[in-house]
Amino acid sequence: MTGEDALPPEFSLIARHFRPLAGPGALDLRDDAAVLAPPAGRELVLTADAMVGGVHFLPDDPPDLVGRKLLRVNLSDLAAKGATPLGYLMTVSTPRDTPDDWFAGFAAGLAQDQTAYGVFLLGGDTTSTPGPISLSLTLIGHVAAGQAVHRFGARPGDGIFVTGTIGDGALGLAVATGRLADATGHLLDRYRLPRPRIGLVLAGVASAGMDVSDGLVQDLGHICRASGVVAEIEVGLVPLSEPARRAGADWLETCLTGGDDYELLLAVPPGREAALSAAAEASGMAVTRIGGFHAGEARVIVRGPGGKPLALKKGGWSHF
Amino acid sequence: MTGEDALPPEFSLIARHFRPLAGPGALDLRDDAAVLAPPAGRELVLTADAMVGGVHFLPDDPPDLVGRKLLRVNLSDLAAKGATPLGYLMTVSTPRDTPDDWFAGFAAGLAQDQTAYGVFLLGGDTTSTPGPISLSLTLIGHVAAGQAVHRFGARPGDGIFVTGTIGDGALGLAVATGRLADATGHLLDRYRLPRPRIGLVLAGVASAGMDVSDGLVQDLGHICRASGVVAEIEVGLVPLSEPARRAGADWLETCLTGGDDYELLLAVPPGREAALSAAAEASGMAVTRIGGFHAGEARVIVRGPGGKPLALKKGGWSHF
Repeated sequence: MTGEDALPPEFSLIARHFRPLAGPGALDLRDDAAVLAPPAGRELVLTADAMVGGVHFLPDDPPDLVGRKLLRVNLSDLAAKGATPLGYLMTVSTPRDTPDDWFAGFAAGLAQDQTAYGVFLLGGDTTSTPGPISLSLTLIGHVAAGQAVHRFGARPGDGIFVTGTIGDGALGLAVATGRLADATGHLLDRYRLPRPRIGLVLAGVASAGMDVSDGLVQDLGHICRASGVVAEIEVGLVPLSEPARRAGADWLETCLTGGDDYELLLAVPPGREAALSAAAEASGMAVTRIGGFHAGEARVIVRGPGGKPLALKKGGWSHF
Repeated sequence: MTGEDALPPEFSLIARHFRPLAGPGALDLRDDAAVLAPPAGRELVLTADAMVGGVHFLPDDPPDLVGRKLLRVNLSDLAAKGATPLGYLMTVSTPRDTPDDWFAGFAAGLAQDQTAYGVFLLGGDTTSTPGPISLSLTLIGHVAAGQAVHRFGARPGDGIFVTGTIGDGALGLAVATGRLADATGHLLDRYRLPRPRIGLVLAGVASAGMDVSDGLVQDLGHICRASGVVAEIEVGLVPLSEPARRAGADWLETCLTGGDDYELLLAVPPGREAALSAAAEASGMAVTRIGGFHAGEARVIVRGPGGKPLALKKGGWSHF
């Protein structure tokens, strides 16, 4: 983002809406590139996600929530590494008739979450598009050298833990598309606005981890493959919100295999479970043990009532 | 980019085309985020640009050139800071019917330029879109701490220099749209494939600089505003390629105000001009003095034959 107020519309758009979001090193979005001194002794953690109108958000979704979700899905990826977020670059491609109000709302949402998560805008680009709004955000954070948590590293004997509750995002999408009622608005809220688990200390606690964005069972499968272990979870232990429980048994599989949870899925050795509890308490987050890892060929076993493995219709290669 | 071969089409697409581009720290594109140890004592330089089909490239442009241009426009921003490129994150949103050949060509172009410029893929995201192909790339490089070149910093008395030749990109767009002939193919080639001036040593040489992407006159205006100086250039000194000269006087203004040059525009103090020449020779690049900066209210003066200021129809606020 480079520009001058008296120049073409692109420049005044940046000046009005995006320059107030710029932080140290962003050079007021007036230069070719940002300059950033990384904290000494820390490794960088980098992630990028795209969001497209009509695919990742609905055309009439409030623009502030679109901005916040764009930032938060990336924050969730950093949270899964145990990283501290620092700043982001963003490209914004919009149809020519996008109203100024949309940009104002989008930037206001970003500003709100910049404050909440301690990040700022470093740079980017604005362009027009003949298609739907197309957004891309690259988030940069840091961890102590060698302390990033990966998908590999889970060992037989480790417990399987999740933060928060599972399934609310997938049920929220069902609400947004008119397939499910949502008396309290909790489910729709969770679909529209993920709660990235930034701040949960994972270094020295988790042997492996990731964020749950493509469904609990599929994502647990990623850890199994990367680590070469079997995961066994009990459906009865998977934490559900009160509205998710009220949706009933017909929606249980959606909770287990739907996406958009943005909770953390962690492998924790037995000797570190107390450290996890302490970290969770310090950050005000709930963590729940839902099963354990065992030796064997990588797969996910989901046990229902009485210990019987469930045959899930969805969930990738982890069918039984 | 996260995935497993046996999972949905997104994952096998990544495995086939993008995993071979991944470098150290990218964790084979299988994790939530990349981990990168920045070189000790260096500052990071970060830039992001988006390219949209039908806006920044034509639908039938060869996909390898699209990939190379996406990387090169970002490399040009780093070159303007005097930075050494390191790696990139990329998001790729494509219509569902995009043929596999397009991805193969796009990735082949990236692979070619990864080798040429010593960069690698760190991570990203692939999504579908109901609109045209929408690409976003964030490039990360580094400079010695405190040595990045900025748009501010030009002083009265500094010379104005450009690398290479000016106007070929803008004339190449005229060729691509059938408005100009191009017997040698030089102009179209320059429009499709920028030559980012990576490797020209700027630290201790240039007092200010930027890359010329929006037209020489407009971009020179950015330096004037950021530095608080007057720029005065002579049209007769602006280096033109042989095909640009042959296009004739009718196209001169297009050369001066058109975009897509991706050359460097530099302010160089008189005592550093020999250092610039040495740096240019060492990197095999041509540099040409086209004028100088003076004290006064920020503006650009373009002098034609006989020293008469030209009244350019285009060029933003720098009209006379």
